[in-house]
Amino acid sequence: MGTGEFQLIERVRRVLGAAVDARLIAGIGDDAAVWRTGGWTIATTDTMVDGVHFRRQGVQADAIGWKALAANVSDIAAMGGAPSFALVTLFLPQDVEPEWVEALYAGFRACGEAYGVTVAGGDVVAAPVLAVTVALCGEPVVFDASGAPLLLRRDAARAGDAIAVTGTLGGSAAGLRLLLRGDDGARAGLAERHRRPRPRVDAGEAAVRAGVRCGIDVSDGLLQDLGHICAASGLGATVRAGALPVDAAAAAAFPDEAIELAATGGEDYELVLIGPQAALDATSQALAAPLCVIGEMRGGDAGRDVQLVDDDGRELSFERRGWDHLARAKETR
Amino acid sequence: MGTGEFQLIERVRRVLGAAVDARLIAGIGDDAAVWRTGGWTIATTDTMVDGVHFRRQGVQADAIGWKALAANVSDIAAMGGAPSFALVTLFLPQDVEPEWVEALYAGFRACGEAYGVTVAGGDVVAAPVLAVTVALCGEPVVFDASGAPLLLRRDAARAGDAIAVTGTLGGSAAGLRLLLRGDDGARAGLAERHRRPRPRVDAGEAAVRAGVRCGIDVSDGLLQDLGHICAASGLGATVRAGALPVDAAAAAAFPDEAIELAATGGEDYELVLIGPQAALDATSQALAAPLCVIGEMRGGDAGRDVQLVDDDGRELSFERRGWDHLARAKETR
Repeated sequence: MGTGEFQLIERVRRVLGAAVDARLIAGIGDDAAVWRTGGWTIATTDTMVDGVHFRRQGVQADAIGWKALAANVSDIAAMGGAPSFALVTLFLPQDVEPEWVEALYAGFRACGEAYGVTVAGGDVVAAPVLAVTVALCGEPVVFDASGAPLLLRRDAARAGDAIAVTGTLGGSAAGLRLLLRGDDGARAGLAERHRRPRPRVDAGEAAVRAGVRCGIDVSDGLLQDLGHICAASGLGATVRAGALPVDAAAAAAFPDEAIELAATGGEDYELVLIGPQAALDATSQALAAPLCVIGEMRGGDAGRDVQLVDDDGRELSFERRGWDHLARAKETR
Repeated sequence: MGTGEFQLIERVRRVLGAAVDARLIAGIGDDAAVWRTGGWTIATTDTMVDGVHFRRQGVQADAIGWKALAANVSDIAAMGGAPSFALVTLFLPQDVEPEWVEALYAGFRACGEAYGVTVAGGDVVAAPVLAVTVALCGEPVVFDASGAPLLLRRDAARAGDAIAVTGTLGGSAAGLRLLLRGDDGARAGLAERHRRPRPRVDAGEAAVRAGVRCGIDVSDGLLQDLGHICAASGLGATVRAGALPVDAAAAAAFPDEAIELAATGGEDYELVLIGPQAALDATSQALAAPLCVIGEMRGGDAGRDVQLVDDDGRELSFERRGWDHLARAKETR
């Protein structure tokens, strides 16, 4: 790439546009970004590496930007918070053109506009592999009488709590399969579901307001993500396969594997919400689409693990429960 | 590497130890970290890539962790703030051993303990190249009567302001030269100066309290870093070579190039502070070691650039003024 660092940063600034969030008092162009908070910060970071999490050749640059930011937005949603400001680091090989970089940042901007996120800073570094790391800050939106934030915690599940999910599952994994086949006909939006996921900030906030205190997002795979809840809460979980809200287009495209895609595919970026049935019902009433109850948390001696069962109570198992970021357990996207 | 993601994260958690900062209410192990703020956040991010910013074979893992965090601490210091919580992303090739990763995080912990920073979260991703990205948050520490934070901004220089630096310059670049020669005899601590820089959070805070409003840290090279001040403030700068506080050990090791190392070497992580002489004098009085005045900001028609001049007022120039992260203008460390 023939463009120097400072010229490239100028191009990126133009693509991102002027920040309009009045809370930001120092942004791109100073040593660090500075913004006002309501008294609390929620912070997360997530990375996508070419050849591991995506393949540059097969994906539009703006979709990479969208998804890299959306994955972080989903983590803030899974705490019950609202996202605000992002720092973006681009690992840039020499053979990437400035136009590609501009399209990438257009994707950050589009996702940011959809979720109220401003790119407030970041870094561009020479590297032998293309990668993007986003660090995203946000804030809690619901507080108790003492001013302490109310959140969705992984360790807050109780025995007997119901387990619910937002939206549908399996669409992203089905979309990936179609894309890997070279079938980007975008059948019923499956490919788009994989490329431009829509995290559920609305549902996280509604759940916290309704009294739900435990949740996680579906990023690595439902069974694996729910396993983190079990480990943190010291409980088991039973999930009924027949209750899973399988994406209709995914089921139509892959009828024999629809349950597996929904249970282990990941990257749907829906929320798993865990709490008393009444709190989940109240959450549903606040949302356009109701939650789908898929199981319950177990105490006692039946194991601190996730069991997926069929209508007769028999346990189902799959070769993989989700994505291990080091073992590369799923297909490379 | 045979260790899965979750086992490795457990090892890293043990190395980092339990968080002791009571502001942190959710840390490693949830979807995102959550902490209390005083109402403002300062945020920055910085990355080190193997083969670009360092060479894994030649550097101890804990020194990489120290320096990756210290570079970010220096950015917070250069805003006049105090650092608080970090998110660490590790790009991990398969041939890196878990013990190496543990030593890396021991370096993060050591630097964090020195500067009051807690690693509150992060990510570990499979990648073909070893790299570490740190996103660091902090807070302003000085406020005006209306409650607005007082900061060191790049665009706050005024014509006639004096330019001062903390500490000494050139030590890190001289240390790098010795290390590249295989001379790690640590002559007068030069190698250590390069490996474990000590950012000047104390000086940033003292400067803001004393009324200084403009500053930057020496990361890419004094002349280049000062160029950012000129560009943001719309001014020129004159720096007197004879006034530069050249590191004594660097001058002894490289007598013919000491000025060049001090002016362009970078990575000293000292602060450049710009303001009225009285404010700089007051800053010196608050610190154990006085600031060194090296020049002044120019308005008018003499150009919006940095001029380095000798005792007779003749301009000195060097082939490079600092580090371009994409052009790789300096030697690879």
